[in-house]
Amino acid sequence: MTLELDPATDLSFTRTLAVPRRLVWECWTVPKHIPHFFIPAPHKVTSVEIDLRVGGRFNTTFDVEGNTMENPGVYLEVVPEEKLVFTDAYSEGWKPAAEPFMTAILLLADTPDGGTSYTAIARHRNPESRKTHEEMGFFDGWGTVVTQLEAYAKGIVA
Amino acid sequence: MTLELDPATDLSFTRTLAVPRRLVWECWTVPKHIPHFFIPAPHKVTSVEIDLRVGGRFNTTFDVEGNTMENPGVYLEVVPEEKLVFTDAYSEGWKPAAEPFMTAILLLADTPDGGTSYTAIARHRNPESRKTHEEMGFFDGWGTVVTQLEAYAKGIVA
Repeated sequence: MTLELDPATDLSFTRTLAVPRRLVWECWTVPKHIPHFFIPAPHKVTSVEIDLRVGGRFNTTFDVEGNTMENPGVYLEVVPEEKLVFTDAYSEGWKPAAEPFMTAILLLADTPDGGTSYTAIARHRNPESRKTHEEMGFFDGWGTVVTQLEAYAKGIVA
Repeated sequence: MTLELDPATDLSFTRTLAVPRRLVWECWTVPKHIPHFFIPAPHKVTSVEIDLRVGGRFNTTFDVEGNTMENPGVYLEVVPEEKLVFTDAYSEGWKPAAEPFMTAILLLADTPDGGTSYTAIARHRNPESRKTHEEMGFFDGWGTVVTQLEAYAKGIVA
């Protein structure tokens, strides 16, 4: 991987999942799957719009304790079953967001036993945003998302 | 074109050039051509790095009255001879810039007489950035760039 992380502004972790990356990719890119793992329960995803191409929309709506949160975004890079990059820095048509928060990079690779090596990276504009994200619970939150994803994806196989 | 412009935050204009869009595209995407038109004379482009793919670098260095200006950026969308989108909001590897200024969209189309309809759009994060860009001389500056491009591209044909 030629991607150079910057500890001052990036957050990342790698986990091994006991599901093939074909399924991990499907969970991340097909709207009907997203509500099953995308935010930690008991928060809910109430709508998902996906146009899976560079510049295409990735818009979600959350219900967080009764409050509606709209999260418009776009895909920056789409390499099937390998790499997905998306951000809140743009909405469709390359319209810049006033205050972009982060850019997410997911990297998937095979493990020898048929599972998936799953790397999640959040890149930020400055150290303050990184710190805010860490304090919002990046590791717990994104970790929970992966656990939910793995459990849900196993159910798809069955 | 499905692109919806926002007059509060976008700047744009369309010009007709007497050169085919194949050449306009070549001027914009091959490093050796860039210094011949990319900023208004007498300012100079002193280096150009291009990796013409989504997420690839578009880095330029200017000499403005003896001051060196570094302009790192990336391509967001590359549709040969039709559409080029680039921004200073990222450098290579999708590293977010601390203070992104603008996202540029170039749209090229054929005119009936073999020329090019050339649309340049600059999208900004907020009305203040748009205003700053207009006051910096967007229309004169980008207009001069197109005039320089047209004159230079005619020379390539000969």
